[in-house]
Amino acid sequence: MRLTLFSDYAIRVLIYAAAADGRLVTIEEIANAYGISRSHLMKVVNSLTKAGYLKGVRGRSGGVTLAMPGSEINLGAVVRATEPDFALVECFTRENRCAISGCCRLPNILNEALGAFVATLDRYALSDITLHPADFRDGRLPSAVRGPDFPPAAATRRGDDAA
Amino acid sequence: MRLTLFSDYAIRVLIYAAAADGRLVTIEEIANAYGISRSHLMKVVNSLTKAGYLKGVRGRSGGVTLAMPGSEINLGAVVRATEPDFALVECFTRENRCAISGCCRLPNILNEALGAFVATLDRYALSDITLHPADFRDGRLPSAVRGPDFPPAAATRRGDDAA
Repeated sequence: MRLTLFSDYAIRVLIYAAAADGRLVTIEEIANAYGISRSHLMKVVNSLTKAGYLKGVRGRSGGVTLAMPGSEINLGAVVRATEPDFALVECFTRENRCAISGCCRLPNILNEALGAFVATLDRYALSDITLHPADFRDGRLPSAVRGPDFPPAAATRRGDDAA
Repeated sequence: MRLTLFSDYAIRVLIYAAAADGRLVTIEEIANAYGISRSHLMKVVNSLTKAGYLKGVRGRSGGVTLAMPGSEINLGAVVRATEPDFALVECFTRENRCAISGCCRLPNILNEALGAFVATLDRYALSDITLHPADFRDGRLPSAVRGPDFPPAAATRRGDDAA
């Protein structure tokens, strides 16, 4: 289970723009800060602008900046806007051909789990994860893996034998 | 955000085996019931057998059956066993190159959301979603899309403007 790279980059762009604190930043600057492709970022920035999270200023000294305070940019809403779908399983897609989707009880459970996932993100805003410009200094080496980190399988049922 | 097809098929195999209620079922039978590839299912069944959810009987009239009661097969544990990773974003992978992963506060929030997702699945067992053999009858047409279905963006912050 993964978010798309598009969502990953969208959040990184917002984190960068938040750290710039009103200063206009260019796509090139963001691409250099993260060491990622400029063309990928172009689409991400366009999408964030369209969604109303960024506003752009054209011209030689142009760039983008947050269109609203970071405290008003809800992380759940960002991920809802950037993920193409939350099609956890086939019957969540329009191409569904699963023979039991009329009677299966799994979708209700997956929708409940998805709701819990998104509801968690809904409790946070961009301002909760804003960094200082110095955090983006060149040459910083990535640290160790940061996740996934979630509780082991429930011990109340024998599911915990399977991990 | 999607589960892998492997997890999707794994749960379908378990649902089918549970409906068979102790009768040995073959990969071919499951493949026909769902209209999916036999070779895909082979790997899924092997993995579920290895994880202790299915047991196989070799020979001409062989097949597989649940290795334990459906009430003891925890859905959260199944998904933990079948998903290759829960690498929501780049810094959850060993290939992480994100420049801010040392100081970024997003991973904690994503881990919390992931925990909420998996904890929901942990509350259910295969027996909660078991079907009747008649539910697999040939020719059933898939119903409409079953998800995703989760609450709209939180209204407490302006994130709800972005949906």
